Amino acid sequence: MAKLRVHNFSISVDGYGAGPEQSLDNPLGVGGERLHTWAFKTRAGRQMLGQPGGEEGVDNDFWLRGDDGIGATIMGRNMFGPIRGPWGDEEWKGWWGDEPPYHHPVFVLTHNARASITMQGGTTFHFVTDGIESALERARDAAGDSDVRIGGGVGTIQQYLRSGLIDDMHVAIVPILLGRGERLFDHLDGGLDGYDCVEFVASPTVAHARIARVKQ
Amino acid sequence: MAKLRVHNFSISVDGYGAGPEQSLDNPLGVGGERLHTWAFKTRAGRQMLGQPGGEEGVDNDFWLRGDDGIGATIMGRNMFGPIRGPWGDEEWKGWWGDEPPYHHPVFVLTHNARASITMQGGTTFHFVTDGIESALERARDAAGDSDVRIGGGVGTIQQYLRSGLIDDMHVAIVPILLGRGERLFDHLDGGLDGYDCVEFVASPTVAHARIARVKQ
Repeated sequence: MAKLRVHNFSISVDGYGAGPEQSLDNPLGVGGERLHTWAFKTRAGRQMLGQPGGEEGVDNDFWLRGDDGIGATIMGRNMFGPIRGPWGDEEWKGWWGDEPPYHHPVFVLTHNARASITMQGGTTFHFVTDGIESALERARDAAGDSDVRIGGGVGTIQQYLRSGLIDDMHVAIVPILLGRGERLFDHLDGGLDGYDCVEFVASPTVAHARIARVKQ
Repeated sequence: MAKLRVHNFSISVDGYGAGPEQSLDNPLGVGGERLHTWAFKTRAGRQMLGQPGGEEGVDNDFWLRGDDGIGATIMGRNMFGPIRGPWGDEEWKGWWGDEPPYHHPVFVLTHNARASITMQGGTTFHFVTDGIESALERARDAAGDSDVRIGGGVGTIQQYLRSGLIDDMHVAIVPILLGRGERLFDHLDGGLDGYDCVEFVASPTVAHARIARVKQ
């Protein structure tokens, strides 16, 4: 069966996947943008932003893996935007401009229904109001033989870990401290039982840990 | 002034510095012994156990730094032994046999007074009942011009971090998951404000992060 995967999810040395006080100005919370500095130094990360240059090597390889064989993405609504509660005028169409870097169907978990949005470049945002299993089912249908990726954020990954639905998860440990915010490995209630760290590779700037189910 | 340092404190990828249910059989909690596997593969770590061989390189270098310029150690009583509450018959003299690998004065934080114990090889265990500042003062006196090291465990490091007393802290991130236990970066109440990750070096098996105060 196609897999449910997490890729390039950055956490600080003290374990935070987002800083505190997420907002329009600080999508990843205060200080949280430092979590992604490494990615935008890679060739593939820069290419995603339409910028030339960038480094090849371990970090670039891991960044590229994140798109490899992925046919659909699931994300939490906080990753989609800063709006909480009802959608209001529905002007908000994500952080990523007219052509988001997904190029496949994206399923946004929310409690507030909204019509799907077709963007340029093959990305369509669908809004799922009936829970994580439903979102996964729809994403699997959309992905066909390809895998489904969970984009984030922290709360969404935790929900899927608690349900034991994630097959493979790549975490990038970044040499910064955030001190507060949303901790990735928290509220898991034994959700990591049966998983182990199956790969561990570091560049000079990031330690990449891959976590996968080792027991059924 | 001489520094207060932490060295070779191992945490899992999910952030735990000890597993759950610490006991005589599992001094580091269930599964916690895997946190230290890397150290006992190094030449210096094996030498400490009286064993030949072992690897040189990054891990060995970090292990050795832990003893460099240290004149006294502070540890929590849970690191000293599995006994909780009163000391009983006082037969317990630590996990380390007749000649502990400290070779200098060690100050054990406890609520239960006990006479000092002189061990072979220069280690003396002193029991401090009047708090972390007092322990630090006594350790500084004992260390003279040398630095003081906090050996652990998690709770003791957290207390000193909350008080802003630690100058330099080396954490070894080990590619395992523990899932539960004592998380190092927890209950800090802003204790990491003003600190940052100032060094980050990885071997194939461990990512070494050094944290230090960057603002006064």
